[in-house]
Amino acid sequence: MTRRVGVVGLGLIGGSFALAMKARGARVCGLSRSPQTTALAKQLGAVDDDRPAALGECDLIFIAVPARATGAAMAQVSGLRRSSAVVMDGGSVKESVAALARENFGDGAGRFVPCHPVAGAEKSGIAAARADLFAGRDVVLCPAESDADAADVARAAWRETGARVADMDAVEHDRVFALISHLPHLLSYALVNQIDGQSPPVRELALRHAAGGFRDFTRIAGSHPEMWRDICLENRANLLSAVSGYRAALDALESAIRASDGPALFEKFDAARSLRNAWAEKFEDARR
Amino acid sequence: MTRRVGVVGLGLIGGSFALAMKARGARVCGLSRSPQTTALAKQLGAVDDDRPAALGECDLIFIAVPARATGAAMAQVSGLRRSSAVVMDGGSVKESVAALARENFGDGAGRFVPCHPVAGAEKSGIAAARADLFAGRDVVLCPAESDADAADVARAAWRETGARVADMDAVEHDRVFALISHLPHLLSYALVNQIDGQSPPVRELALRHAAGGFRDFTRIAGSHPEMWRDICLENRANLLSAVSGYRAALDALESAIRASDGPALFEKFDAARSLRNAWAEKFEDARR
Repeated sequence: MTRRVGVVGLGLIGGSFALAMKARGARVCGLSRSPQTTALAKQLGAVDDDRPAALGECDLIFIAVPARATGAAMAQVSGLRRSSAVVMDGGSVKESVAALARENFGDGAGRFVPCHPVAGAEKSGIAAARADLFAGRDVVLCPAESDADAADVARAAWRETGARVADMDAVEHDRVFALISHLPHLLSYALVNQIDGQSPPVRELALRHAAGGFRDFTRIAGSHPEMWRDICLENRANLLSAVSGYRAALDALESAIRASDGPALFEKFDAARSLRNAWAEKFEDARR
Repeated sequence: MTRRVGVVGLGLIGGSFALAMKARGARVCGLSRSPQTTALAKQLGAVDDDRPAALGECDLIFIAVPARATGAAMAQVSGLRRSSAVVMDGGSVKESVAALARENFGDGAGRFVPCHPVAGAEKSGIAAARADLFAGRDVVLCPAESDADAADVARAAWRETGARVADMDAVEHDRVFALISHLPHLLSYALVNQIDGQSPPVRELALRHAAGGFRDFTRIAGSHPEMWRDICLENRANLLSAVSGYRAALDALESAIRASDGPALFEKFDAARSLRNAWAEKFEDARR
């Protein structure tokens, strides 16, 4: 029998998951709030059926809506799904999502598996969706409160997309991603805000002469403001703690500059370069 | 008569300039402290003559040594150059270099033209040098204290490499580059230092799950620690002032998060995204 997969939210992530499942022979029920998105998803071959009731026939339902809409999507899914169906999400913050699942699914919360596909892209929306978006990318699962068989279903589906799956504790996930993802976004936005706030002649000169280093450093400041507002607020405590740790790291460099302490500055820059380049080598190898 | 160009310091920048001049038919006298570098430069066809005395036959001399070695290189050039020769440097900080030129060239300081080719690359050294490194890149000239004809010679040479040349005041240059280049390097180093300072399990998880956004944000933390130590110390006052402005920009974002003020956060992220993406579009167009 053909496997039936539901996808709620047909953006880049939901649309790409739908395409990946279709490529593996599944029949996809896909829902979007936007009729244009639904039409395009059907046209691109990502979705077979767009009736909400069809979610009731699915074995696996992926909620891929903006973070702030996750509760409402869970409530909708909760009213439609069969009780054995496995439900997963794709948000960047996991502790809050596990709590939402307890609220919305109650006794059935064990069927829910918090997931985080680490596959952002500069583009967004169904038009940018690709069946291979997750190939070679990480997907983090936080199945501490999930039924073991539900976690297995989620894990297997992600592996079918070509992703590498890792389990993590939700609290640990949120702390670590504050550090490596949410904080850098905040820092990059702050730099662009600072340049935006310069006097007009300095601002103009800055934008005229900014080059490749600036482009790379600020690439993530081109990210979706709604999405990142929601992530920052959802992971507020961890992010504030990461900002505080960052201030300490910046203080150390600033003190060395203020004291014209070349050796201290060299030591910190050299340590950073070693760590970053060793990391980048492994990272690029894994992506090859 | 064949034009004679001198290059002191045969790293990526000096070596690439030598190759570009050779490609335009010049005879290049090239000096390096390292005999291996000199041998490789000759083998790569970047250098014809490596006798210091040959600098005395050059019409244009490019000093392309690390910032801290610039004074010594000027002293060497000063003792060898013909008085009409035009001398230029390639450092990232310009006010201090103009002062060094006054010290080392005295009455002949008008022959010196402070230059900043904005063409860093992840690679360094003569082995990475390319005749087209400067093609389509910016070169900033700060010729306020230079003889007009000397500035014309420097400008013409850079144009021959394919670079786009812009004039700027040295004080203004240093303030603007603190903001768009020196500060982002510092911020990127600080983030890697922060991750390096985590407890071993958090550090390991962070490095394991860091992905594309982290890669781009920290690319400049892979830069040469000696070079960036020198730049930070040379442009100390402007950099400290940029750090202070950055703290204010980060404070504003932090306060919005602390107050769970979604609209304020959205407004700042949205402004940053608009500015950054408009800039990036122009930047990529210009590079095409």
